[in-house]
Amino acid sequence: MDFAFDAQTQELQGELLEFMDSHIYPAEPVFAQQLNEAPDRWSAHPPIMEELKAAARKRGLWNLFLPGDHGAGLTNLQYAPLAEIMGRSGALAPEATNCAAPDTGNIEVLTQFGTEAQQKQWLQPLLEGEIRSAFCMTEPDVASSDATNIGTRITRDGDHYVINGRKWFSSGAMSPRCKVLIVMGKTDPSAERHRQQSQVLVPKDTPGIEIKRSMNVFGYDDADHGGHAEIVFNDVRVPVENVISGEGEGFAIAQARLGPGRIHHCMRAIGMAERALELMCRRTTDRVAFGKPLAEQGVVQHWIAESRVKIEQARLLVLKTAWLMDTVGNQGAHTEIQAIKVAVPEMTTWVIDRAIQAHGGGGVSQEFPLASLYAHARTLHLVDGPDEVHRRSLARRELRKYKTK
Amino acid sequence: MDFAFDAQTQELQGELLEFMDSHIYPAEPVFAQQLNEAPDRWSAHPPIMEELKAAARKRGLWNLFLPGDHGAGLTNLQYAPLAEIMGRSGALAPEATNCAAPDTGNIEVLTQFGTEAQQKQWLQPLLEGEIRSAFCMTEPDVASSDATNIGTRITRDGDHYVINGRKWFSSGAMSPRCKVLIVMGKTDPSAERHRQQSQVLVPKDTPGIEIKRSMNVFGYDDADHGGHAEIVFNDVRVPVENVISGEGEGFAIAQARLGPGRIHHCMRAIGMAERALELMCRRTTDRVAFGKPLAEQGVVQHWIAESRVKIEQARLLVLKTAWLMDTVGNQGAHTEIQAIKVAVPEMTTWVIDRAIQAHGGGGVSQEFPLASLYAHARTLHLVDGPDEVHRRSLARRELRKYKTK
Amino acid sequence: MDFAFDAQTQELQGELLEFMDSHIYPAEPVFAQQLNEAPDRWSAHPPIMEELKAAARKRGLWNLFLPGDHGAGLTNLQYAPLAEIMGRSGALAPEATNCAAPDTGNIEVLTQFGTEAQQKQWLQPLLEGEIRSAFCMTEPDVASSDATNIGTRITRDGDHYVINGRKWFSSGAMSPRCKVLIVMGKTDPSAERHRQQSQVLVPKDTPGIEIKRSMNVFGYDDADHGGHAEIVFNDVRVPVENVISGEGEGFAIAQARLGPGRIHHCMRAIGMAERALELMCRRTTDRVAFGKPLAEQGVVQHWIAESRVKIEQARLLVLKTAWLMDTVGNQGAHTEIQAIKVAVPEMTTWVIDRAIQAHGGGGVSQEFPLASLYAHARTLHLVDGPDEVHRRSLARRELRKYKTK
Amino acid sequence: MDFAFDAQTQELQGELLEFMDSHIYPAEPVFAQQLNEAPDRWSAHPPIMEELKAAARKRGLWNLFLPGDHGAGLTNLQYAPLAEIMGRSGALAPEATNCAAPDTGNIEVLTQFGTEAQQKQWLQPLLEGEIRSAFCMTEPDVASSDATNIGTRITRDGDHYVINGRKWFSSGAMSPRCKVLIVMGKTDPSAERHRQQSQVLVPKDTPGIEIKRSMNVFGYDDADHGGHAEIVFNDVRVPVENVISGEGEGFAIAQARLGPGRIHHCMRAIGMAERALELMCRRTTDRVAFGKPLAEQGVVQHWIAESRVKIEQARLLVLKTAWLMDTVGNQGAHTEIQAIKVAVPEMTTWVIDRAIQAHGGGGVSQEFPLASLYAHARTLHLVDGPDEVHRRSLARRELRKYKTK
Repeated sequence: MDFAFDAQTQELQGELLEFMDSHIYPAEPVFAQQLNEAPDRWSAHPPIMEELKAAARKRGLWNLFLPGDHGAGLTNLQYAPLAEIMGRSGALAPEATNCAAPDTGNIEVLTQFGTEAQQKQWLQPLLEGEIRSAFCMTEPDVASSDATNIGTRITRDGDHYVINGRKWFSSGAMSPRCKVLIVMGKTDPSAERHRQQSQVLVPKDTPGIEIKRSMNVFGYDDADHGGHAEIVFNDVRVPVENVISGEGEGFAIAQARLGPGRIHHCMRAIGMAERALELMCRRTTDRVAFGKPLAEQGVVQHWIAESRVKIEQARLLVLKTAWLMDTVGNQGAHTEIQAIKVAVPEMTTWVIDRAIQAHGGGGVSQEFPLASLYAHARTLHLVDGPDEVHRRSLARRELRKYKTK
Repeated sequence: MDFAFDAQTQELQGELLEFMDSHIYPAEPVFAQQLNEAPDRWSAHPPIMEELKAAARKRGLWNLFLPGDHGAGLTNLQYAPLAEIMGRSGALAPEATNCAAPDTGNIEVLTQFGTEAQQKQWLQPLLEGEIRSAFCMTEPDVASSDATNIGTRITRDGDHYVINGRKWFSSGAMSPRCKVLIVMGKTDPSAERHRQQSQVLVPKDTPGIEIKRSMNVFGYDDADHGGHAEIVFNDVRVPVENVISGEGEGFAIAQARLGPGRIHHCMRAIGMAERALELMCRRTTDRVAFGKPLAEQGVVQHWIAESRVKIEQARLLVLKTAWLMDTVGNQGAHTEIQAIKVAVPEMTTWVIDRAIQAHGGGGVSQEFPLASLYAHARTLHLVDGPDEVHRRSLARRELRKYKTK
Repeated sequence: MDFAFDAQTQELQGELLEFMDSHIYPAEPVFAQQLNEAPDRWSAHPPIMEELKAAARKRGLWNLFLPGDHGAGLTNLQYAPLAEIMGRSGALAPEATNCAAPDTGNIEVLTQFGTEAQQKQWLQPLLEGEIRSAFCMTEPDVASSDATNIGTRITRDGDHYVINGRKWFSSGAMSPRCKVLIVMGKTDPSAERHRQQSQVLVPKDTPGIEIKRSMNVFGYDDADHGGHAEIVFNDVRVPVENVISGEGEGFAIAQARLGPGRIHHCMRAIGMAERALELMCRRTTDRVAFGKPLAEQGVVQHWIAESRVKIEQARLLVLKTAWLMDTVGNQGAHTEIQAIKVAVPEMTTWVIDRAIQAHGGGGVSQEFPLASLYAHARTLHLVDGPDEVHRRSLARRELRKYKTK
Repeated sequence: MDFAFDAQTQELQGELLEFMDSHIYPAEPVFAQQLNEAPDRWSAHPPIMEELKAAARKRGLWNLFLPGDHGAGLTNLQYAPLAEIMGRSGALAPEATNCAAPDTGNIEVLTQFGTEAQQKQWLQPLLEGEIRSAFCMTEPDVASSDATNIGTRITRDGDHYVINGRKWFSSGAMSPRCKVLIVMGKTDPSAERHRQQSQVLVPKDTPGIEIKRSMNVFGYDDADHGGHAEIVFNDVRVPVENVISGEGEGFAIAQARLGPGRIHHCMRAIGMAERALELMCRRTTDRVAFGKPLAEQGVVQHWIAESRVKIEQARLLVLKTAWLMDTVGNQGAHTEIQAIKVAVPEMTTWVIDRAIQAHGGGGVSQEFPLASLYAHARTLHLVDGPDEVHRRSLARRELRKYKTK
C-alpha cells in the first residue's frame, strides 16, 4: 500500500496546476464577458476557448482522460488527480484539455465499440476537439433510472432505423458545435430486459430532430457548455450502419460508459469542493464582523475543518475506486463506483453550501462561482442514477454476503 | 391555550384559498409566458398581474399584512396563516394582494415613522399598489450583519443630504415601477454605535443614482419581482425633509422593521415548504420505478413523514411568535423571532431539497417550481442577518439566565 | 389561538416547580445513595421515595396524569407542562407524584376497561401508590411493532386462561413492589388480525411465572424503577375473569393505551432536554479552556441556540397534540401523536448528546445525569414502536390526501 | 499509489482472522460468564483470558502494535488492518494479543524514553503481558484538553518527587493487575507553557494513592479491562529516578504518545463499525415485519449502504494517516491524525446507532454488543481531546495556507 502519486502523475499535476494559474483562472472573467457580449448565448463560442485549447494541446494536456493509443494513455488512477484539478474551473479546464463530458463518454464508447467508419467520421473530430457531441438518454416521461422504462423507439425499416421519442437533459446539444447525438432507445421491447435497448449515432442535422427548449439547472442555462436540450425525435431516419456495436447492446454500452463517466464526475467534484473551500478560507480571512475576522469564529472553523475532513475521505475513496478499475476492471469496482457516486455529491454540496453561507449575500450571486458550483453539484445527486438507486443496489450487495452463508 | 384559528382568520383562509385555486395557480403559467415574451424582462409588467390585483382587492384580500386603519387591521397571528397561503405562490400571491416585500416593510416604516408629507407622497400610492419601492441596506464591501460596518455616508449640506455609497441586493429596484428607495447610511460615524445611522427617502430618478447591475440568485434574475439591484450613490442629493423619523434613528427603524419582516418571510416559507411537499407527494404517487410507485419506497416515505413533522413544528413556532408579537410586542418576542429565523429556512430548504430529489432531473429545472423555490429559500439563511448571527445572539440570551444566578 | 397556559395550569406549574426545588432535586443524591447502599438493588426501596410521595400527595400533586374522578381531572393540555417538569428528574418526580409509567398506562386501562372487581383489586392500590405494575407486551423472538407477530398464547381451559410465552422489557417487573402484570397475547390466532389479541391481568406471584433476567439499557439496570424484566410464562393459569374488556379486545386496548402513553413519554422527554440544556449552559459558563469560558466558543453557542430552537418547536407540537387529544380525541390526533413520537426523541437525544460533549469525560459518567438521560432518551426511538413504523404510517396518511383526489 | 496490502500484512490478517473465528468470538460469552460469576468484578481475571494470551502468543500474534525489536516490528500501515480486526472484539482481542490500551501507549513511552532501569522494571513485564498499567492524565476539575490547565503538582523534595492532585478516567487502574501508573503533572508551573509538565512512574502500591471510585461510561463499569479510576494523590513520594525523560518533558512525551494512541483508537473503531454493520445485516435479514424482512425495507437499506460508504472512507483516511506516520513521521501526519480523530468517531457512532435501531429493544440491551460498542465509541469523541479542539486546530492549519500568501 502506497499513497504517493507516481512520477508521471506528479509531473502532469505540476504542469496542469501551472496551466490553471497561467491560463485558466485568468481566462474565467474573459470567457464570461465574451459569452455575455455575444448576440446569442447559444451560438456564442468565446474565442478565448480556442486559445486555451491550443495552449493546452501544445503542452500535451490533451485527451488525458482517454486510456490507450487514441488518448494520453493514462490509467484511471493517474487521471483522477488531474480531473480533480480541472474540476476547479469546470466550465473551462475540461473543455480546454478536451476532457469535457459528454464528449469523453462518447469518445470512450466510439473507441471501444465504434466501427472504423464511425471512428473516422465522429471519433476523429472529437479527439481533435473540432466538434462536440451529446448523449440522449434521459426522458421526461419516465423514471429513467430504470432502463426498462425507456420509451424512445428505434424501429428498423429496410436499411434505416426510424427513431421516435422524447429526450431531455441532453447536455451540450443546444450548441451549434454539437454535431452528433448518441441516442438510446428500444429496438426490441419484447426482448429480455437488458437486451431491449440499442444506441445509434444520429447527426444533429437529421430531419425530424426538433430541439424543443433548453432545460435550466436552477436558473442557469449552462449556455457556456451547450445547455441541456429537450429534443423530440419525429421519424428520424439514420442508416443501419449507425448502430453502435449491434442491436440489443444499448444497455451494455451504457453500463460500460457509466463507470468512467461516474468517476470523472466525482473527480471533478472533488476539485469543485476544493475551490469552494479555498474561497471560504480566503473570504473569511478578509471579512470582519463583530470585531474579528469571520475565520476566527468557531462555527466557521468548524465548517473549514469538516470540509477538509470530508474532502480527504471522499478523495481517497475516489482514488481507490480508480485503482480498482485499473486493476480488477469496472465490474470489480462496481460497489466502489456506487459508493463514490453517493458520497462525493453529498460531500460536495455540503462544502459548497457552507462556503456560500460564509460569503453572505454574495455567495448566492454571480459575484462568486459558488452558487453555480452548487447548482452543478446538486445535479450529481441525480445524473447517472439518483442516490437512492445506488444506495439500494449497494445495500443489496452488502446483504448478499450474509445471505449466502 | 387554544390551537384553533379564530373565526375571522378561518373565513379569510377560506377566501384566500379559493382565490388561489380560482385565480393564482391558473395565472402562474400565464404570468411566466407574458414575462418571457416581453421585449425586456426588466421593464416587463405582465398584464395578468393587474388583473389579479383588481380581483384580490375586490374580495378584500388587500394589505392584509398591515395592522391598524391603513391596512386590513389584522393581528400578526391572524395574518400568519394567510401569508403562509400566499407563500405557496410567492411570485404572484403576495403582489396580487399588495402584501409583497419589500413594500410591506417600507409601508410599515412609513405608517409608523413617516411625516404627513412623506405618507402622502409615498405611503398612499404604495397602499394603492400603484408604485413599488426598495430598501437599500446591504453593502457589497462589508459584512452588513454588523450595522456598524455600514459604509454609505449621508452628509448634511444645507437643506440637503448628500448620499455616497454602494448598496446591493436592493430587491425590486431593477423595475421601472419601483419609484422610491429607502436608504440606510451613516449621518454621524462618530456617534454611539446605534445612533450613527439614518434612513432617508430617495426618489429613484434622483441624479447620481446609478443602477450597476442585477444580482442573480442561483442563476435567477428574479425579474418577475424587480430583481436585486446593485446601486451606486454618487453625490445623490435629497431634501432634509426626506429623513425618516430623524437623524440617528436609522438603526432603531431597521430593528422595528426587521421583526415583522422576518416573520413574514418565515410565514411564506412555510407555504413554500407545503407546496414542495404537495409536489413531492403527487410526483411520487405518479412515478413508477422498479415495479412500484416511488411513493411506496421506504426512503421516499421517510422524506414525506419528516417533511410533515418538520413543517408542523416550524409552523407552530411561527404562530407562537406572531402571538407573542401581538401580546408582548416585538421586543418581547425577540428570542422567538430569532428562533424562527433559524429554524424555518433550515426546514424549508430541507423539504424542498427532498422534493427536488424525488423529481429527478426535472426537479432542478424550470419544469417545476422547486429549484426556484430552493434558491429563494436558500437566501433566507442570509437575508436580515445570517443564521450564525441569530444563533449567537440566541445562545447569549439563553446563557444569561444562568449568569445572573 | 392562544399560547398562554390557563390559570389552573399555571398554578400547578408553580407548585410543582416549587416541589422540585424544595424536595426532588435535593432528594436525587439521597435516593442514589440509599439505592447503592441497599443489600440488593432489586428489592431496595429507598425510604426517601415514600417521604416524597407523602409530601407530593399532601400538596395535591398526585395522579395528575389521570383525567376524570379517579385522578386529578386535568386535560392532556393541562397535564403536559406538568409532565415536562417531572421529566427533569425522571427517576424521582413521576413516582413521587404517582405519575410513573407503566402504572399510568395500566391505571388508564383499568379505569376505562376494568370491571368493578378488577378495579377494586388492582386499580385502587395503584391509585394509592401502594403497589406497582408492569405491562408485558414486547417479545424477544419477533419484531413486536407488528402486533400480528406476537407469539404468546392465552388459551382458554374451562374457567381459566393458560398463558405460555416469553416477554422482555417488562419495565418495573423486577421489583418486589410490582404485584400485577397486564399480559398481551393471542387468544385466537385464526381471527381477523386485530381481533386475535387479548389482555389479561396476572398476579406476579402466579405459579409458572419465571423472571429470567433484567434487561440492561446501555449498561444501566434501571433498578431504581424496577428494571426491565425478561419473563417466561409456563402454563400460567388465571381465572377467566382476569381478561380485560373481553377476548379479542387486546389490540384495541393497546391502541387506546398508546396515545396517552406516547404523549406522556414525549412530555417528560422535553423536560429531559431542558435539564440537559441547563446543565450545558451552567457547565460551559464555569469551564475555561484556551483562555475563555466554553460558553463563549462559537460552536458551543451553536449547540445552545439549536437546543433552544429544537426544544421550543418540539414542545409546541406536543402541546398541540395534547390539545387535539382533548378536543377531537386520540383517534383524531393520530398523525400528531406519531409526529411527536418521531420528533421528540430525535430532538432529545441530540440535545443531551451535545450536553454530554460539552461536559467532556464527566458527561459520559455517573458524575452527571446526562449519560443516563441519554440512555433513556435513546430507548424512546424504539419503545411503543420504532421511529420507522411511525414515519411509514405518517407518510401513508399524507399521501392519502392526494390519492383520493 | 497502490491500495493493496503487502504480503506480510495479508498473511497476518489471515492468521488473525482465523484466530478471531477459532478463539476470540467463541470466548466472548465465556469471558462474560466468568466475569459475572466472580465474587468481585474488580479483582476478577477470567481464566479464559490467559488461555487466549497463550494461544495468541504461540501464533506470533503478540505485541503487533510495537515497531522495532521490542515488538513485532510492523509499520503503522501494517498494524492498522490488524488493529481493525481486533476492534471487532475490543474487550478480548487487544488484550489477548498484548495490544490493549493504555499499556500500548505506556510501552511505547518506556521503549522510547525509558531508562534501562525503568525498562527492566516495568517495560519487560508489560511486554510479557504479566502486569498492566495506567496513564493518569485527565483531571476532574479542569478542561484537560488544554494542558496548561493541569492542576496536579510534582514537587522535588531531595531525592524524591512528591505528587499531589486528583485524576480521573485512569483506565485500567481499578484492576489489581495494574501495577504502575504514569502520572502527568506540573514540576514547574512558572516555565514556558509546554515545559511545565513532567511524567513520572508511580508504583500503584505507593502510600498516598487513594482509589476513590470507578467512573462509569454510560452504565458500564468496564471492569473487564480494569475500569476507569478516580485517584487522589496525597503526598505520594517516588524517587527522582522515576521521572521519564527528564523534568519538563511531560508535554513532549504526551504529544509523542498521542499520535499512535489516536490512530490505534481509530483503527479499532473501524472494526467496531464493521461488527455493527455485520450485526445489522444479519439481524435485518432474519427479522420479519409487515410481511417482509427488515433488510428489504428501503430505510434499512439506506442505513446499510451509508454505513458501508462511511466505513470505507474512514478506513482509507486512517490507512493514509498510518502511511504518513511511517513515511514523514507523526509530526508530518499531524493534520491527518486530527482528521481521523474527528471523522472516525462520528462514523462509528452513526453506524452503531443505526445497528441499534435495526435491533429494536434488544439493541440497547446486553443481548447484543451494540449498546456497549456505542458507549465506547461515544467516548472517542472526547478522549485524547474533544472533537472541537481537533477541528479548531485543523481549521487553523487550513487557514494558514492563505494567510501567508
